[in-house]
Amino acid sequence: MSKKLKIVTIGGGSSYTPELMEGFINRKDKLDISELWLVDVEAGREKLEIVGAMAQRMVKAAGLDWKVFLTTDRREALKDADFVTTQFRVGQLEARVKDERIPGKYGLLGQETNGAGGIFKAFRTIPVILDIIKDMRELAPKAWLIDFTNPAGIVTEAAIKVGGWERTIGLCNIPVGATKMNHEAMGYDKDASILFEKFAGLNHFHWHRVWDKDGSEVTSELINAFYNPESDYAKSKQAEVANIANINYSYEQLADLGLLPCPYHRYYYVEREMLAENQQNYKDHKTRAETVKATEEELFELYKDPNLDYKPEQLTKRGGAHYSDAACEIISSIHNDSRTVMTVSTQNNGTVTDLPYDCVVEVTSVITSHGAEPFNWGSFPPAARGQLQLMKAMEEVVIEAAVSGDYNKALQAFNINPLVQSGIYTKDLLNEMLVAHKDYLPQFADVIAKLEAEGVTYIPQ
Amino acid sequence: MSKKLKIVTIGGGSSYTPELMEGFINRKDKLDISELWLVDVEAGREKLEIVGAMAQRMVKAAGLDWKVFLTTDRREALKDADFVTTQFRVGQLEARVKDERIPGKYGLLGQETNGAGGIFKAFRTIPVILDIIKDMRELAPKAWLIDFTNPAGIVTEAAIKVGGWERTIGLCNIPVGATKMNHEAMGYDKDASILFEKFAGLNHFHWHRVWDKDGSEVTSELINAFYNPESDYAKSKQAEVANIANINYSYEQLADLGLLPCPYHRYYYVEREMLAENQQNYKDHKTRAETVKATEEELFELYKDPNLDYKPEQLTKRGGAHYSDAACEIISSIHNDSRTVMTVSTQNNGTVTDLPYDCVVEVTSVITSHGAEPFNWGSFPPAARGQLQLMKAMEEVVIEAAVSGDYNKALQAFNINPLVQSGIYTKDLLNEMLVAHKDYLPQFADVIAKLEAEGVTYIPQ
Amino acid sequence: MSKKLKIVTIGGGSSYTPELMEGFINRKDKLDISELWLVDVEAGREKLEIVGAMAQRMVKAAGLDWKVFLTTDRREALKDADFVTTQFRVGQLEARVKDERIPGKYGLLGQETNGAGGIFKAFRTIPVILDIIKDMRELAPKAWLIDFTNPAGIVTEAAIKVGGWERTIGLCNIPVGATKMNHEAMGYDKDASILFEKFAGLNHFHWHRVWDKDGSEVTSELINAFYNPESDYAKSKQAEVANIANINYSYEQLADLGLLPCPYHRYYYVEREMLAENQQNYKDHKTRAETVKATEEELFELYKDPNLDYKPEQLTKRGGAHYSDAACEIISSIHNDSRTVMTVSTQNNGTVTDLPYDCVVEVTSVITSHGAEPFNWGSFPPAARGQLQLMKAMEEVVIEAAVSGDYNKALQAFNINPLVQSGIYTKDLLNEMLVAHKDYLPQFADVIAKLEAEGVTYIPQ
Amino acid sequence: MSKKLKIVTIGGGSSYTPELMEGFINRKDKLDISELWLVDVEAGREKLEIVGAMAQRMVKAAGLDWKVFLTTDRREALKDADFVTTQFRVGQLEARVKDERIPGKYGLLGQETNGAGGIFKAFRTIPVILDIIKDMRELAPKAWLIDFTNPAGIVTEAAIKVGGWERTIGLCNIPVGATKMNHEAMGYDKDASILFEKFAGLNHFHWHRVWDKDGSEVTSELINAFYNPESDYAKSKQAEVANIANINYSYEQLADLGLLPCPYHRYYYVEREMLAENQQNYKDHKTRAETVKATEEELFELYKDPNLDYKPEQLTKRGGAHYSDAACEIISSIHNDSRTVMTVSTQNNGTVTDLPYDCVVEVTSVITSHGAEPFNWGSFPPAARGQLQLMKAMEEVVIEAAVSGDYNKALQAFNINPLVQSGIYTKDLLNEMLVAHKDYLPQFADVIAKLEAEGVTYIPQ
Repeated sequence: MSKKLKIVTIGGGSSYTPELMEGFINRKDKLDISELWLVDVEAGREKLEIVGAMAQRMVKAAGLDWKVFLTTDRREALKDADFVTTQFRVGQLEARVKDERIPGKYGLLGQETNGAGGIFKAFRTIPVILDIIKDMRELAPKAWLIDFTNPAGIVTEAAIKVGGWERTIGLCNIPVGATKMNHEAMGYDKDASILFEKFAGLNHFHWHRVWDKDGSEVTSELINAFYNPESDYAKSKQAEVANIANINYSYEQLADLGLLPCPYHRYYYVEREMLAENQQNYKDHKTRAETVKATEEELFELYKDPNLDYKPEQLTKRGGAHYSDAACEIISSIHNDSRTVMTVSTQNNGTVTDLPYDCVVEVTSVITSHGAEPFNWGSFPPAARGQLQLMKAMEEVVIEAAVSGDYNKALQAFNINPLVQSGIYTKDLLNEMLVAHKDYLPQFADVIAKLEAEGVTYIPQ
Repeated sequence: MSKKLKIVTIGGGSSYTPELMEGFINRKDKLDISELWLVDVEAGREKLEIVGAMAQRMVKAAGLDWKVFLTTDRREALKDADFVTTQFRVGQLEARVKDERIPGKYGLLGQETNGAGGIFKAFRTIPVILDIIKDMRELAPKAWLIDFTNPAGIVTEAAIKVGGWERTIGLCNIPVGATKMNHEAMGYDKDASILFEKFAGLNHFHWHRVWDKDGSEVTSELINAFYNPESDYAKSKQAEVANIANINYSYEQLADLGLLPCPYHRYYYVEREMLAENQQNYKDHKTRAETVKATEEELFELYKDPNLDYKPEQLTKRGGAHYSDAACEIISSIHNDSRTVMTVSTQNNGTVTDLPYDCVVEVTSVITSHGAEPFNWGSFPPAARGQLQLMKAMEEVVIEAAVSGDYNKALQAFNINPLVQSGIYTKDLLNEMLVAHKDYLPQFADVIAKLEAEGVTYIPQ
Repeated sequence: MSKKLKIVTIGGGSSYTPELMEGFINRKDKLDISELWLVDVEAGREKLEIVGAMAQRMVKAAGLDWKVFLTTDRREALKDADFVTTQFRVGQLEARVKDERIPGKYGLLGQETNGAGGIFKAFRTIPVILDIIKDMRELAPKAWLIDFTNPAGIVTEAAIKVGGWERTIGLCNIPVGATKMNHEAMGYDKDASILFEKFAGLNHFHWHRVWDKDGSEVTSELINAFYNPESDYAKSKQAEVANIANINYSYEQLADLGLLPCPYHRYYYVEREMLAENQQNYKDHKTRAETVKATEEELFELYKDPNLDYKPEQLTKRGGAHYSDAACEIISSIHNDSRTVMTVSTQNNGTVTDLPYDCVVEVTSVITSHGAEPFNWGSFPPAARGQLQLMKAMEEVVIEAAVSGDYNKALQAFNINPLVQSGIYTKDLLNEMLVAHKDYLPQFADVIAKLEAEGVTYIPQ
Repeated sequence: MSKKLKIVTIGGGSSYTPELMEGFINRKDKLDISELWLVDVEAGREKLEIVGAMAQRMVKAAGLDWKVFLTTDRREALKDADFVTTQFRVGQLEARVKDERIPGKYGLLGQETNGAGGIFKAFRTIPVILDIIKDMRELAPKAWLIDFTNPAGIVTEAAIKVGGWERTIGLCNIPVGATKMNHEAMGYDKDASILFEKFAGLNHFHWHRVWDKDGSEVTSELINAFYNPESDYAKSKQAEVANIANINYSYEQLADLGLLPCPYHRYYYVEREMLAENQQNYKDHKTRAETVKATEEELFELYKDPNLDYKPEQLTKRGGAHYSDAACEIISSIHNDSRTVMTVSTQNNGTVTDLPYDCVVEVTSVITSHGAEPFNWGSFPPAARGQLQLMKAMEEVVIEAAVSGDYNKALQAFNINPLVQSGIYTKDLLNEMLVAHKDYLPQFADVIAKLEAEGVTYIPQ
């Protein structure tokens, strides 16, 4: 802990920033920070200034001498950085609205990290992450890149395989939440670390197994507790969580699987019901992006309060809890070689033998000063293996399309994505999304120009 | 060619039998047959007698001394057999009607080898094929099993992996047809063998590459010819084939893929349009099974004619052309060690490195006296790889469910099958199909009894 | 730590037992032991009684109420055991003398765990370990088997793959020693746990990489320190260790490799010089077994002293230091779910992708209450990969021969073992070893009878 | 067969050239040749002129209008070539003498394609083959490279992986000879093509399996016939072949293996006896190179005869029979898309699953106009697998050293080569060979200069 740290957050104008600040402040004994740089683009300057001022107040209130810089000059910020975290959203929430509403119009699930929306978020984000890496190579050649911009698994794979930046770790809050739920269901304090859990798969598409301290595997017991409507645990929780989990899995399917799913598996295991609900939200103009926009506006109103110098309770409800805290924990674990056990997106290298050696997987790892050291996983049973392999193959095609700007490849990605029903109609969907997002898709500029010349337009619904 | 051959056909009462007979007769110089046994179940006795009598007339007309036996005693037939071909259909066409109409009711593609229907055909067929193998082990331990009962890939995998009968080869007519189309499109005689073609994948889910005699790969050229509506070839063919191929692929997707698809890829590449057409057929009571039933009735009327002693032209229109001829060719190639190049279902053993070593794949092979020797294929590009891996994993789950009669596993198979939209509703679909097919699902007897006790019924629509 | 533990040690009459006792006593707060059973065969009864009495004195001196039983009735001992450790030596040191002297006569390296001697040690040990497992399945179905009978990797693979006992962990002291050396060379306290080390390979044939707390890999730095005769560290150590390491590696080879070797790699990397020294020892009757025999006699003289109730200093010089302590640590870590990091022999499951999925590897693992959870390793660079793959393949053949008693397979194992120069002459070597060890090779009884009938004899040299 | 062919032979001054010419002439109906270019280096000009003149006489005697050019200008020759065959020997036979005698001095097997000699032949050849490819890329971008310069497997791998020339096929005559022997032993005409044979492995390190026309595998039967001294076939052959095969395999080892070895396996399966014989030859100055030098001189005396216009009988005795004929057959098969079955070195792509996907293997293939299409092989049993994997890993290290000129890597290659006993002494061996071959090792120029400065010299023995 000799050197003082310079930490840079790209997308610093995010509403999550106060949680990130709180995470750093909570670890002040482990992180000897000199400078924190919050970076954003011109379009996000107002938010950056609001939330940045609040970040400065938080640091001050904590009695720390850390300098908090706000800037739209990314290169200035990156110079000699030790850690770079990314929480930017290319095209802001407006783009997310399109990612959700355009697919919805075609009868598809509209969602930010899955399906057509997730593909387009990758298309917009990958060129930017590669640009950041280009800057880092020049300005901060030893820095770690902690990505929590979604789709985090795909972005991390692009950063490592295409960008060649091996010091990248992708982050997700879902495993943190699962650990808490598992402990609670097993009768432990939900913040304890008693159970041994091993996650493997892809970001937003992993499974996990759990062992109790006496060495017995309790995965099936937990599947029963959470997903069998007849289990005591499920019954006891019904009042409490009914509003969240009103679409449950088929318990019989999970019982056969023998692995605990992640929440996003609902899109793949109970697609029909999820689609129906999603279509209803689409009709009601209550897609997730539309909801979040309202929440965010409220949050920024709060942040404007010059007396607010702590993370407000409302932020927790924003979703994505634990995300920023997990990022701070990883930074601390790398910096101090603490060997904390975390589930992160990192290079596969054979950890999951069903997937390409050089791809990125999300796996339970020990976080060391030289990066993530994953626990070996091996092979999945066929019921999980096949879908996992399809998802990874699809991700590879998405990355190839995002890098090349190749229209045919983008169409391929759409048609093999399990949440985009394949068809000739997908050309219309793809065309409309390309035109809608044209400001953030430089790699597709020629294609989009041609589409517009042919009369393709985007009409917000 | 010293020993005289005994050939047994299980499902001998099929309307295809005359083509099979024609195939044998055409190869009379290569196949020194002593006995042909046509075997069927009691329910198929009438058809067996009609088509069997015709088979006897065909042999007589050819001036051959082969003895053609008709029987429902499978064990008597199998005794000392050299080759056993299977073309049986458990539950007859009535079962196929259910395989198509029940999924249709739930808004799904109803189809005999894919989706929910294909899974149930496997559930009905696998116990029977394993029974046949049990008999063969005792009565005909050196016989080859040539399977063309669908789903041929899954049935072949069950025969080899579960039944342990390595002398099994699964057969499909699609590659034969593709070869003819490719030659024609390249300006050669459609029955020529000039192009070098390499197929790999699974039955009804393979792709292929083609090289011309000058060594240049013409796969992309053929993709353009067949699937680009702007290509000269496609335009020249339009009048001719419009009624068949009114659902084309997205040419852009195939151009990116760089592999020629098989016709069944339409279910996976243009699912939305295929589903719409299929739903229309469902509403019109014109599903494939319903259509075929009518055709079959006409055929059997023809077969009754005591003067008919040759394969009638109408049979060709039945669909499945080349199937029986391919079976005869394989038998001749094994018997004579002819080393004919054919695309068949056989053990993978690393031919397709993306799939399990011990699974069954459909690959271009040289047919020798010791079986199929596949050409190495290697790995697929991601756009094909992921879906292929999912299909194989799904097949594995289907086989496990078919063998064990495990309800949860059957539900798993449904939910990971890409043509069965996942959901809680799939339990209703599965339950109804189990009850509908109960006469042919001994392995699920307990499950079905429980479902019936709970009031599940099958109501034909 | 609720249940009181019953621990059984097979080969309890070993001179190592006092170290094992000391290990248990040191962990008295973590291991609530009720019974310790020391088991040996009739031929070892005298030693068992001497060392067993001493073990009882040690427990008493520690003020513990643990019951220490001495027995030759293995089944009585195993009943309801929680942990079974194995340190037996089939045929006692006499057999080891033969393992070293017979190969020596043929101009080969004679050694207990490598080459022809190691193969025969496996031949003698595997039938016994499989017998123990048979008993455990009946009498102690939940017990863990901690093997430190050599060749530990091969024995562990036989226990898991052939015996089906997945709760087996193989143990070696070498990684423990390497950790101490690495810390010392990096300027840390030699008993510290500061460096991150990752070992992978096979027992007595692994390599490792090391990272310092600042995240930098120091593997090359350590290779230089230990093996470059020009390095400051090597020079500073010369006086000290000259007598041990007088055969160094070629530094240039290790520099290219980029991995730290294990001490046994000397047999494979500087074979010529090792062979020469070994042949000299053979001529001087100073093979390792002959030396150890003398040491052991001295030790047992000491153990007879009714006043000795602690591990004598001389035992440390016996070699194999840390072995027994490591066994106690594993038992404690499993019992308490302590998640200690240790390098052990366990199932591969893809940890080392160059080796078969179902084989046993020696890899750095976290020891949990459900067994070893290895860190993923991935693939080796070719310079290590090829030899590693050969060693594993050879081990597989050894196990097959040990289980089947197949002469041809035993000869195969000899000829592909890299320390047994292949040749026609190996039949003479094999024959002589079979006859020499005939009392301990029931699986080869028929083969040996035939050899003796043909006049093959063993003449001690 | 429209275009007239231009064929270039690098190393055209070889004594093999008349066989090559005979091969082309025998295929005059299949190969419409316009120009044949025989290329050699300045040091080989005399031989080139002698054998070139004879080649011209052979063409004339055959009544053909092919133009035969002799040149030392490789680039002129390569311009617009269709096929390039390589039979050059960098450093001529003098270099081979060193490859055999220097290792012999250190007590090792001296041999041109295996052990230290083989490694140095690769070191000398790889830079030249990469140069040729550089020229071909510019001057003959569609030409096929048919390599029969040894070590053919390693050279082919370097050409494809390092040079990126996928249109390379490596050739060996051993499979041709094995086919003849197998047919003869099975009672067929030795030139027949009745048996189905499948070879796999590496050049000079492959195994094969054989099936008879009735479908039964006869591999074990042939192992018995050839290698069991008690078999009728072996007895009947004894008088005949005693002088050749006086070092037989241990039949028991091969019986266990269940695969037919290649002749070079003797170096690995009966190393002790082979080494003894080789050391005797070394002492008697009768190493293979020394013997061949004498034979070659005789041959060139013959070739000088202006009346000799056909391949003389003596050439057959030179060894390497069928080599040139095989090269002509491959050229014809590619040119005419004949789909001949041949065993060649080509890209693995998963054909042998035990080896890296992107390496070169020697496997039975169908030769098409687009190259070799191998039959799938899959995995080897462990007794073959391990040594095969070691050999390939060693080859990879050899290629890396040959390309980089890295001394440490060269030493690594020596120490992991199974025919170079590892040791510290290998530095002396390596150093002496580097200095001895310095004229042909530009990549090691700096290293050699340093060694010479340190006083390393080569003293012919």
